[in-house]
Formats: sequence, structure tokens, C-alpha cells
Amino acid sequence: MIKVGIVGGTGYTGIELLRLLAQHPEVELRTITSRKEAGTPVAAMFPGLRRHVDLAFTEPGAQSLRGCDVVFFATPNGVAMGEARAVLEGGARIVDLSADFRIRDIAEWERWYKMKHAAPELVREAVYGLCEVNREAIRGARLVANPGCYPTAVQLGFLPLVESGAVDCDHLIADAKSGVSGAGRKAELQLSYAEAADNFMAYNAGGHRHWPEIRQGLAQAAKREVGLVFIPHLLPIIRGIHATLYARVTREADFQALYEKRYAGEAFVDVMPAGSHPDTRSVRAANMCRIALHRPPQGSGKGDTLVVLCVIDNLVKGAAGQAVQNMNLMCGFAEATGLSQPPVVP
Amino acid sequence: MIKVGIVGGTGYTGIELLRLLAQHPEVELRTITSRKEAGTPVAAMFPGLRRHVDLAFTEPGAQSLRGCDVVFFATPNGVAMGEARAVLEGGARIVDLSADFRIRDIAEWERWYKMKHAAPELVREAVYGLCEVNREAIRGARLVANPGCYPTAVQLGFLPLVESGAVDCDHLIADAKSGVSGAGRKAELQLSYAEAADNFMAYNAGGHRHWPEIRQGLAQAAKREVGLVFIPHLLPIIRGIHATLYARVTREADFQALYEKRYAGEAFVDVMPAGSHPDTRSVRAANMCRIALHRPPQGSGKGDTLVVLCVIDNLVKGAAGQAVQNMNLMCGFAEATGLSQPPVVP
Amino acid sequence: MIKVGIVGGTGYTGIELLRLLAQHPEVELRTITSRKEAGTPVAAMFPGLRRHVDLAFTEPGAQSLRGCDVVFFATPNGVAMGEARAVLEGGARIVDLSADFRIRDIAEWERWYKMKHAAPELVREAVYGLCEVNREAIRGARLVANPGCYPTAVQLGFLPLVESGAVDCDHLIADAKSGVSGAGRKAELQLSYAEAADNFMAYNAGGHRHWPEIRQGLAQAAKREVGLVFIPHLLPIIRGIHATLYARVTREADFQALYEKRYAGEAFVDVMPAGSHPDTRSVRAANMCRIALHRPPQGSGKGDTLVVLCVIDNLVKGAAGQAVQNMNLMCGFAEATGLSQPPVVP
Amino acid sequence: MIKVGIVGGTGYTGIELLRLLAQHPEVELRTITSRKEAGTPVAAMFPGLRRHVDLAFTEPGAQSLRGCDVVFFATPNGVAMGEARAVLEGGARIVDLSADFRIRDIAEWERWYKMKHAAPELVREAVYGLCEVNREAIRGARLVANPGCYPTAVQLGFLPLVESGAVDCDHLIADAKSGVSGAGRKAELQLSYAEAADNFMAYNAGGHRHWPEIRQGLAQAAKREVGLVFIPHLLPIIRGIHATLYARVTREADFQALYEKRYAGEAFVDVMPAGSHPDTRSVRAANMCRIALHRPPQGSGKGDTLVVLCVIDNLVKGAAGQAVQNMNLMCGFAEATGLSQPPVVP
Repeated sequence: MIKVGIVGGTGYTGIELLRLLAQHPEVELRTITSRKEAGTPVAAMFPGLRRHVDLAFTEPGAQSLRGCDVVFFATPNGVAMGEARAVLEGGARIVDLSADFRIRDIAEWERWYKMKHAAPELVREAVYGLCEVNREAIRGARLVANPGCYPTAVQLGFLPLVESGAVDCDHLIADAKSGVSGAGRKAELQLSYAEAADNFMAYNAGGHRHWPEIRQGLAQAAKREVGLVFIPHLLPIIRGIHATLYARVTREADFQALYEKRYAGEAFVDVMPAGSHPDTRSVRAANMCRIALHRPPQGSGKGDTLVVLCVIDNLVKGAAGQAVQNMNLMCGFAEATGLSQPPVVP
Repeated sequence: MIKVGIVGGTGYTGIELLRLLAQHPEVELRTITSRKEAGTPVAAMFPGLRRHVDLAFTEPGAQSLRGCDVVFFATPNGVAMGEARAVLEGGARIVDLSADFRIRDIAEWERWYKMKHAAPELVREAVYGLCEVNREAIRGARLVANPGCYPTAVQLGFLPLVESGAVDCDHLIADAKSGVSGAGRKAELQLSYAEAADNFMAYNAGGHRHWPEIRQGLAQAAKREVGLVFIPHLLPIIRGIHATLYARVTREADFQALYEKRYAGEAFVDVMPAGSHPDTRSVRAANMCRIALHRPPQGSGKGDTLVVLCVIDNLVKGAAGQAVQNMNLMCGFAEATGLSQPPVVP
Repeated sequence: MIKVGIVGGTGYTGIELLRLLAQHPEVELRTITSRKEAGTPVAAMFPGLRRHVDLAFTEPGAQSLRGCDVVFFATPNGVAMGEARAVLEGGARIVDLSADFRIRDIAEWERWYKMKHAAPELVREAVYGLCEVNREAIRGARLVANPGCYPTAVQLGFLPLVESGAVDCDHLIADAKSGVSGAGRKAELQLSYAEAADNFMAYNAGGHRHWPEIRQGLAQAAKREVGLVFIPHLLPIIRGIHATLYARVTREADFQALYEKRYAGEAFVDVMPAGSHPDTRSVRAANMCRIALHRPPQGSGKGDTLVVLCVIDNLVKGAAGQAVQNMNLMCGFAEATGLSQPPVVP
Repeated sequence: MIKVGIVGGTGYTGIELLRLLAQHPEVELRTITSRKEAGTPVAAMFPGLRRHVDLAFTEPGAQSLRGCDVVFFATPNGVAMGEARAVLEGGARIVDLSADFRIRDIAEWERWYKMKHAAPELVREAVYGLCEVNREAIRGARLVANPGCYPTAVQLGFLPLVESGAVDCDHLIADAKSGVSGAGRKAELQLSYAEAADNFMAYNAGGHRHWPEIRQGLAQAAKREVGLVFIPHLLPIIRGIHATLYARVTREADFQALYEKRYAGEAFVDVMPAGSHPDTRSVRAANMCRIALHRPPQGSGKGDTLVVLCVIDNLVKGAAGQAVQNMNLMCGFAEATGLSQPPVVP
């Protein structure tokens, strides 16, 4: 049993961490902080956690996290970079679910997140927590930068292709669609039911913060710069990301075999039979990424465009579940511990 | 006042035609047929039409349409091609909302619709009813093939580009998303609420019937063959199509100006300010197509991919509204007659 | 043609007024005010109104409303009572869509709305705008208090019963369900998609502001005090109210005939065949109230409970549509002018 | 470890059983039958169960269930009554999730289910599986009739009241709302997304099959006949029942204390603080019933109507979860074994 703390537990990634950790056999949840809700019992705020979580929110601060083996930051961007050092010095290891340590190029990060980075040296230390790529480094890390939701789906979907070098890496296209919980738990007009329901739209087509994160990951896999068009859309669903990925084949290969081989043995990536159409609910509330390949008709002859369909639950494999997966690796538990719940369907 | 008949009025395009025609100042609705529901008052089946439509469904057959000036076929594919000749000979003009007369290559049609075509000579006579392309021909047509919903959105979105020759026409990509009503009014497990709600998926990624229709239209505009990848997705909304279109620029131009010029004077195509993100509800229940252009970041420099966002209501501009627009042209009414209702928002 | 102004047009009742007035043949929309959005074109805020509304929002104040024949207040509670006098003195007549003039007992109003009333004498002058009850008084009114959404549905549903004296008026029960737009256009966490979708709950079971308004109306109809339990619920739909009403029969009667007679000739109340189950979409975007009666099984013998099902669109018959209906009466137009659109189904 | 079989596993209760049993530490799933899908791998039909369930559907028949300790019937009504005897004689114990053994009065059952009962003597033997009422009898039962979804919610909500005799038992009112999955996994027009989404309606207001089941249970608790009005409504949500219950108080009491005492020690009934408004998502995918009491304003003085709000997940506490709870009792496992997952929120 390890002792775990959560900083900033009132958002959707926070409550999802609570749901998963409450079922984790090796975890004792010790502390959950929230400046605004200090003193409020967690279960008063989230009635679904009555009988599952007995803690109340406490004031944030390294003090409150004393004695924790692992601390999760489920805070808005810009918080973890200020507090991480003290937590590390207190002896805990960190999984940061915010964007603070994801991008290695500090200038690039500052351009997209519109603030000065408070801890560049920790960015250098941090390990990017995409387990299917950095598994070994994660095991030994003190500080893991948990990937963003879109970046998880798009990278897992493109990885085998860009690693193989069989596609045109200057013209990758990711048409991504996310459920509303991806925007966080907040009062915002355009996220309100009467605005977002029975409706669909693209947003940030001119540039989204997850674009540099995805490009960084794909470039590392490709061992070269990549060109990527990334258009996110807002889906009227609660949870779920569906990424539809387009790549131009420059060298033919058995792509189904390529994907199956790349992800053989992965507990949380499921390469489906060729021609499948994975739906977001097939991963709802589950730590799983499902992928399917298509070679659609294009012109008179055989086309040169490969289409990859990729789904995750943005709050699980795209956030809290992946964070627990990282924790499992860091603590030497079996990677799937506490993460084997089937999806909730229907 | 013209006399109008509807063949097969129990589907969603049928009821939508009823909604629009009930508000049309130049139309007297004379007949609506349905083999299965003959004798049932329309308003008993669709209580929303109580006090608006007094007719009962009648047995189909040219007999029942005697005296109609215009007849709409809102039937499943394969019906209109068998009945159109008799209706035309009876003196009525036809707008067919099914796919029977949309594709000029009979063999291609038969391959996708998996039946033998019953009236190839009428295919030759039929005018494809995309008003923004074929306006003059429609005015004089006896038989108009009303475009499919996806084809309307994708063609209107790509037209200025392919006409201009400024993009790579071998690698067009249409990532299209449709609300559930696009599948028709039918009892089908995968369309049921508990399956389709809070869920999202691609379908027919290996080939969809609207693909050849779109290619035919774009080829005509481009005056050459085009290569198109078309991936449809099922959105958990009732009405609405959102097409996200990707084209690679081969010759730079002021694309915003190109679109504004191409659609200047069009009552039902709205080129929005550059950088807009049209949402499907902005056209809900309205005969309108909204388009916006983006030039997203792609790599270190300026990218070469142009993104077009395009929305319609699949039941209005994608079906019944466009059919009325065609009828207006055929009958010499102002094109917007009866079609000027604002969208229903929220 | 009359000249019309709207005060506070950025909420859902405001935009719905715009949608309806844009289609009204006797109305010239002159002014729409919004302190926060002054200067913004209406169509920039609501893209669905592009090509329908050319106005920009202007600063509020009697000045800007000079020359209007009718002014609609679509403001938060507490605004109209402060500004109405100046508008009336400017010569315009008013339809107030807020709650300021609905409740005749000032103390009761102040208790529920938690502010001091600024214009009690206008409350005395105001006519309660439930057309089916106060039609004649509305024609001559300078100031009409447009009913609340729940009060419209519950009163129309109970009226024939309480007028008839055939039920126990001390124990009326209204189990009411409203779509999210009923809460207004605002950024509020509990109204956000990720909170309200795929979810259902009661709210304000301990007391809701519409309760005294309903009781006042029913008491007037019953010519005695009434006892009413009113439990509102939040439905995951955008528009629509469904009121399920329970009354204990104390004197048997032909209730179907009673309702049909009471609402004979009403353009916007539709008594459906006995045993019907009206759904909210059958009035979506339409100015209509549909009602159906049931006598459900209760025990071994015939039960004594009558159940009334009643649906409206909260934004139309429950707000903007009823406001236009009131305007039509006040201005001597046919009551249904501009209000005859069929509902949008599906 | 016990060996478990499921008869008829292709419906929503079947797949939910699979989800729960896959997580149950004492269960080995041996067989799952489906006439129609025999030979199909379960995971091919329900991709969410890939890596969780390796079985394929097999032909039904006592043969295939040989060796099972417990057999669940998740079949349409009318199947279990024909097959139960053979299964019992084969040595297995049965939890029947259909309605076949729920109603003790055979004539009443035959009236509502419109078929002749095939095994009246098993009805006499069967124990009604509402654990909070019949716990001891269930432990020893060979055949348990798992309660219906509405009956679970309405009975748990009313039980303390009718047992106490403090309310008028001739005039109970249950205004109940259910998500669409309650209707089962089937292709039916009125359950399709385009019909059921953004919509709300009552149904079967003239009589629903769950009404006699609820009355039977409440009568047993009250030790007298009860009068109940039960109006079900169709909610546009996937899972969840919300029952709003109305009872007239005839003898005042501390009702909050009454409920807390009645359900003290119950793992799956949560009496919330007075004044709470439980929402359906607070039990989504969890075996839990949440209850809250209200005493709403009614007239000038204190009213005499008590309102009980009660939520369950129709597929869990209203079906598969309760079935597993029954199995746990029958097999001597701790009652909560395998049922302690927190709800999935948001």
C-alpha cells in the first residue's frame, strides 16, 4: 500500500482519479487538496463518492502532502510548475496531469500557454508519460508529465506509421472530436447544455495547445520534424475522443500487421480487426485505446491514403487512467493494477 | 398556387417537406401517399402537424397524383425510377429526393445501390438539383434529382476550390459527420437512443454511396477526375451535417475572396468571416449552408493545407428545403419563397 | 406595421423573440438593447440570425426606445420594474417577459424574488398575459405581465378542472419537467453539458418561484385558495416542458368533453384524443400547448385520480411566443399572426 | 469460485451482467446462450468486452448449462417459465431477471403479460428478490424472481412509509421516469435516437406491467391493499430511473429518521440528507439506490404531502446488479462482493 495525495481534486480529472484510486488495491488515499473547497467533505461535493471516499478537501501546500509516496497534480495549467519542487523535496514522486511539464521547448510552451515557465529544470527532468513509448523511463522517474487527451489518441494512432517511415510525415492530418468533459469542469456559456447539446462544431481550427505536444511526440518517433494539421471538434457527448487520422502512404506495407506488432502485449491498446469502426462508448470509463485501419476508395484505382480510427475515454486513457498507469509503473505494481474495469455499455 | 403531391411521406424527408410546404404561400398540398399508412390522417401519425395538414395518406399510384403540378418522391431508393415515367406522362414535374437519378453512370449506380436501374433514359434527362451549380437547367427541367445530404455539404464546400484549380484534386479529404436523422426514420438497433446517444463513430469508412455522387459533381466542376477520401461519422444529434474538408494548396490565392465571390448573391450559402467555426445548430431547421475557411498551423513554416468547415441541416438544405428550392426554380417563384425561416437556436 | 423594441435581447427569450418577430408580417424591429453588448451586431452574437436581423445592440434607456409602439422586456427579474414607467410614459406599450409584474401580492413577490419591488402601482395596472384567461383585458392593456413557463403549462393543464370545481383543490400535484433553456442563457456549472446531459434530477423541491404564480392563477380560476405541490425537474433536453398533473376527482364528469369545450376555438391549446401521450417535440419551436387526459388504474376498482399531461415549448408558448400572442391582441392583429409555424420534428 | 451461466445474454441486462460478473472475484463465467447468436464470440458482438470475456454464445438448452451453480435468465418474458424446471433439476439455482416469477397471482400475471403461465408451481416456490425486504428467504432460495426496474425504485422509496402506516395508502402516486435502456436492446422506431432524443413523454399512462408488481410489494409491506397511481415517462438518457413519489401524511412522524433507521446497514440504499436532490448519474453504473425526502410548500400552512425522490440505475440496482446481489446472498458471499464500483460521473 502506498500513500497518495491529489492536488486540486475538484475538476473532472480529479474526481476520475478518485473513482479509480478508490478501486485500486495498492493505494491508500491520504490527502486531497482544494483551496476553494477546503473543509468540504469530498462526498458532499460529489454525492456519487458517498461511502467510497471519506476525506474532506484540505488547504493545498507541501505540508498537507507530507508522507505521500505519490502526488497527482490535477490542477489548472501553471500550478504544478510552482509547487512541484517542494513536493519532490518532501520525498514524493509526482504525476502531473496538467500541461506544465509536457513540452520540452520552454519557449514553445510559453507561447502556447501564455505564461512564463517557473521550473524549466524540472521540464528537463520530467518524463513524458505515454507508457507505450516511455515505459522504462517512467519506471525510474520522479516526475511524470501525463499526456494530454488529444495527444494520447493522436500519437497512439500515428505512432506505428511515423516510426515505420512509410507515410508522408509532412502532411499528417488529425481530425479529432472530443466530448465536453475534455474542456474541464467549469461554468462556461459555450459548454452549457443548451449550447452544446444537439450541436457540433470545430474549434481552435487556427491552433490548439495540443498541437505542439503531438508534433513533439511524433517527431521523436519519426526522428525528424513532422507536419501536422490538427482540427479539434466539440462533440455532444460527455466522455470520449475519436481521432480520424489521415496519412499518405509513400511505401506500401501490411499496415494491419505493423500495428498489431507494434502494440502486441500492450494491455491498453487494442488493434481491432481491419475494417472495424470503434465507437467511443467501447472505451467509456475504461483505460483503453482502440484502433482500426481503413484504406478507403479514393479515385479510380487504389488510393494512397491510409485512415486510422482511434478512440479513448479522454478522462481515463486520456487523463486519470493513464496517470494511474504511470503510477503503477513508477511504484513497481503490475501495469494494469486497478485499471481492468470493462467499459460501461450502453 | 400550384398543386403538389408527395409520394412516400412517412419518412423524415417526407415530414420535413410537409412542414415546409405547409408554410409555402404558393403551394396547395393535394396528395400524400403511403402504401402502408393509406387511410391514416397525416396528423394522427405526426401530431405536430395537427391543425397544419388535414390530409390522410392515400394509396400510391399515378392515379392519386392526377392534377398535381409538382410531385416529390420521398421514397426509398429504387421506387422513383419505377414510377417517374407515369407521373411525368400525367403532366406533373418531379423532384426526386431519393438517389435514383443522381448518378449519370448507370453501371456505377447499380454497383453502389445493388439493383438494376429501371429508367436509364430518365437518368439522362434528369437535372442534378444543386441549385448553386445548375440553376438554369433546373428552371426548365421536368425531372430534378435532388442531391444527397453529404453531397450537398461536401460539394458546396469544395466547389470554389476545385473550380479554381488551385488545389491538389487527387487528394481531397472530406471528414463528414451527420446527425442520426440522416439515416432515415426506421427501426434499427444501431440507430436506437441507447446505442447512438453519448457515442460517436465512423461508419462505412470502406465506401459510402454518397462518394460516387460527390466525385461526379466535383469532377464536373474541376473538368477532370478527382480523388476523394470520404469518411462519414454518426453524430449524436438529430439534424445537421458538419463537413471538415482538407485540400492541399498548389497555387496560392485569396481563398476567402474566392469563396465570397463564388457565392455572392446566393440566398442559401453563407460564407462566414475567415476564422469562424460554424456550428450545426446555426442552420437547424433552416435552408442554409454556412462555410468558413481556415489555414491551420502545420509545421515550422506556413502550411499548405486549406481547411473548409461547412454545415447544413441534412433534412433541409440537405433534402426537403433544397427540394422546395428546386420547385421554386421550376415553377418560376422567387427562389427563397417559403424558405426564409431563421434557424431554431437554441 | 408597428415599431418594436426589445430590452435585453441576449438571453434565450430575447433571441427567440428575434426569431419570431423576424417572421412577423406586421412588425418592424427597431431597437434591441444590451448594456454589455452595445455596438455588437446581433448577427455576430447569434450567427443563425445573419441575413435576418441587421440591427446592432444599443445601450439601454428610454431614449433608445423612443418611437416604439411595443417594447418587450426580456431582462433578468428586477429590471423591468425600474424602467417600465419611463417606457410607458414615452408612449409605448409593454410586454414584460420577466417576473416583475406577475404576482399581485407585493409582499409575496418580494419574499420569493428577494428584492424590494420598485413599482407596486404598475403591478396593480399590469394584466397577467395568459391569453386563454385574460384575452379581453390584454387587448386594452398598457402593460402585460407575460406568464412564466411552468405557470403557463400548469395553469392551462389545471384550468378546466379548477374552474369546474370537480376536483379536490387542496391537493393538486404538478410534477413538472423542463428543458435546460428554461434556466436561461448563462454560464453555470450545473447547467453545463457534462453535468446536465445523460442525467435527470428534481430541483427546488422545497419551493420554486413559479409556485406562488401558479397558485395565484389557479385560485382566481377556482374562486378560492388552492393547495398545490409543485416539483420541478431538470430534463436533458434543450426546449420543452412536460407537466404531469394529478387531481383527485370529487365529482365525476366527462372530463374530456370539459377540456374540449373549455379550449374550443383556442388557436394555441390542443386537447388531444383521450389516451394520447403528447411529447415535448410535438410543440418544439411552436406556439402550442397540447393536453391529454388519463384515468389510470389505481386499486381494485376505478380510481379517483385524474392525470393531465401537458406540453409546451418553454421558449415559445412559455415565453416569446406567448409574448407575441399578447402583442397581437394588444395591437388588434389576428391572434395567430406570425405564430403559425409547425413544430420542428424530428 | 462458482460456475455461472447466462441464458439470453444479448440484451442490455445480459451485457450488464457480463460487465459485473467479469469483475466478480468468486465467479467463473461458464456459458452464455443465445439461439440467434450461437457461435458468435461475445466480444465480437460487444467490442467493449474484448479482453474481458472469451466465451462465444452457445445454443440454449439445459445441456449447455450442465455444471453451473447459478444460472441467470436474462431472457424476454415467457422464456424462463418454460426452462426453469429443467435447470433446477440439473442442480443449478436460478436468478430470473424477467417478469415470469414476480407476480404471485397467476391470473393477474396472465392478464398483464398476455400469455398462459407455464409453471405456476414455480411461482409459488420463487422468492421475490428485493434483498432489502426478503434477505433471509433469498439466502435459501432455489429460484429468485429479480424485481423489475421501476418496482425496485418505487418500492424502496415507499417502503418505510407504507410499513409505518403514517400515510394514506389508497392514494400513493409514483411519477417515474426511465432512461431508454429500460425498454431493452431492440430495434423500435420510438426508441430511435431521432425520435427519443431532445424529447420527453409519458407512456402507458393507462396501465403499465410494473404497476401490479409494485402494488403487490407495497401491499405486503402495508399488510393491506394499496391504491397506487403509476405514470412512467421516457427520459432521453441511457441509464437511470428517477421516481418522484407523493404520499399524503395521515400521522406526522420524523420521516427522515424513519428512513434512516429502515435502511441502516443497507449497503445499497443511501438515505441522503434531508433536502437533497439525488440525480440519476450519482448511481450511473453502480448498484445503489439514493433516496431523499421533501416536504414542499402546498398552501398557506404546512402541507400534508410528503415527497420522496428516489434514483437507481435501471440496469444495475434495477436489474443486473440486484441479480448479482441476490446471487451473493444465495451463495453465502458477502452481499457487496463485486458490486462496490463507484458510479461513473460525469
